[in-house]
Amino acid sequence: MKRSAIQPGSLFAAALVVFTLLVSHLAFAQPAHPLPSWNDGSNKAAITTFVDKVTREGSPDFVPVPERIATFDNDGTLWAEKPLYFQVYFILDRIKALAPQHPEWKTQEPFASVLKGDLKGVLAGGDKALIALAMAAQTGMSTADFERVVKDWIATARHPQTGKLYTEMVYQPMLELLAYLRANGFKTFIVSGGGIEFMRPWTEAVYGVPLEQVVGSSVKTQYEMRPDGPVIMRLPQIAFVDDKAGKPVGIDTHIGRRPIAACGNSDGDQQMLEWTTVGQKGARLALLVHHTDTKREYAYDKGTKKALEEAKARNWNVVDMQRDWKVIYPPEKK
Amino acid sequence: MKRSAIQPGSLFAAALVVFTLLVSHLAFAQPAHPLPSWNDGSNKAAITTFVDKVTREGSPDFVPVPERIATFDNDGTLWAEKPLYFQVYFILDRIKALAPQHPEWKTQEPFASVLKGDLKGVLAGGDKALIALAMAAQTGMSTADFERVVKDWIATARHPQTGKLYTEMVYQPMLELLAYLRANGFKTFIVSGGGIEFMRPWTEAVYGVPLEQVVGSSVKTQYEMRPDGPVIMRLPQIAFVDDKAGKPVGIDTHIGRRPIAACGNSDGDQQMLEWTTVGQKGARLALLVHHTDTKREYAYDKGTKKALEEAKARNWNVVDMQRDWKVIYPPEKK
Repeated sequence: MKRSAIQPGSLFAAALVVFTLLVSHLAFAQPAHPLPSWNDGSNKAAITTFVDKVTREGSPDFVPVPERIATFDNDGTLWAEKPLYFQVYFILDRIKALAPQHPEWKTQEPFASVLKGDLKGVLAGGDKALIALAMAAQTGMSTADFERVVKDWIATARHPQTGKLYTEMVYQPMLELLAYLRANGFKTFIVSGGGIEFMRPWTEAVYGVPLEQVVGSSVKTQYEMRPDGPVIMRLPQIAFVDDKAGKPVGIDTHIGRRPIAACGNSDGDQQMLEWTTVGQKGARLALLVHHTDTKREYAYDKGTKKALEEAKARNWNVVDMQRDWKVIYPPEKK
Repeated sequence: MKRSAIQPGSLFAAALVVFTLLVSHLAFAQPAHPLPSWNDGSNKAAITTFVDKVTREGSPDFVPVPERIATFDNDGTLWAEKPLYFQVYFILDRIKALAPQHPEWKTQEPFASVLKGDLKGVLAGGDKALIALAMAAQTGMSTADFERVVKDWIATARHPQTGKLYTEMVYQPMLELLAYLRANGFKTFIVSGGGIEFMRPWTEAVYGVPLEQVVGSSVKTQYEMRPDGPVIMRLPQIAFVDDKAGKPVGIDTHIGRRPIAACGNSDGDQQMLEWTTVGQKGARLALLVHHTDTKREYAYDKGTKKALEEAKARNWNVVDMQRDWKVIYPPEKK
């Protein structure tokens, strides 16, 4: 091996000195806290204490980088979910867009109610009606076609009450938490009851969570070779429901590792928070976002009571949106 | 914002100069090629040309880092698969280990043949016998218990012909290819017909592929709360077969993105290679490992003919193990 006149050892030492000066200067000049939208209090302290414990070398709770897995519910945890799950608005809009190709829907429930704008009539049909609408709106096309439809909708559709784009109704404090965990070596995953292919087209841009780190509910799919190349078709059959006891199963299937941090907001997240914390040694973080803010967002306990009770019994951190969060949504872009 | 006397701009410039010198020195001193176990030839050239095309800024085939997805079959592509799939040896060993708890197996096929060491008798039962053995050996326990069993086995069991640990029968040239792709911004995934939970306990150490980037066949699982904490139980029912047309489906479910590079060796990988290449614009890499080396490994065409034919028709790169690879297995540790 030839060696040039310059010794890499001495160069490296020189570079190290210069960079150390540079880094210490930047550390001095930068804002002190990575969670600026969180008010000081026990929840913010629980987050930073947890991260310190699992990342500090020599700490008894130290966790190596590959095992720093954090899972986040989506609806009600990373973005709003009222008055209806945002994916329901997507499904309703899609039914209206497809109606010209389905003249029979004018007299056929639950489609007729959707087309008349009778939301109460739709909801009266219960889960069965919603599943029929979900299948009609979201299957029978290729995964590539579905991705295009979702991308178009998410870029233009607006929330019926706030007039915001749905992706503008994500929670700023949670965006900061995601970024803070990633800056500390965590891989952040979404584990949502929502459709996996409904989320993937926009999670990377909005949350910094790549497609392969999104776990969700799904329909069956089928590979088919067509004259212009292969497609994967979405079939009208539920494959997996990523909710309640399904969440640990989804985590196991997609991640294969037990999270050390998990955030949710409802009874659907209870088992994910249990799986993350119960019977585990070492520091764990379980956050339950409690919707308490009628003024800036919504306040409700429907579908969250069991999780709130368990949070109390197990000492999970219950985030009080009104008290803990300085802002709810990101500042509007001018 | 306070500012110290040292200007970060000038420090950064100084550091940059020093590091540039350092890096150019190291580049000069280091070996020229990242695939040292590959002989020069059209396949090695195809790999490096492809990587250059998709990573060079301004190249018409440039692919942004998040979209650099490469998928690898495991059996016969990353490690050997003869005389039987290695997971079959695991299953047979496990049946023997469990036999004392199952006196009825002494007279019950296919278990009786396993316990007598009559491999022909076992294989005579076909897929049905193998599935019965697989379920008996690999389900009815928690995922945590199964992980421990796999870890113990993979650390100690030895191949009946080479006497090597199974993880010593991985292909050195493929380890180099995995590392080369990762060094160029790729995320590397395993997409195997093998059991997802059979692979995950060792893929990170052996291939540098983390658990969440392993896609495989699976059994149904179920979340259960026990007195000392929750478990996920493995049920004796097949959930997903990650083979043939199942591979694009598995890729879609777990990754959500179409790969731009894929490597396989058999008819089971055909659809994965199609999904990666057919009808796609831009540079794509499809490698089919052809087992041609009776002396250093195995030579066989059983179960690979359709893939070899399609490789010819579609200009996929067929790797001739005997001709293309300088070594097969990694050098033995002293």
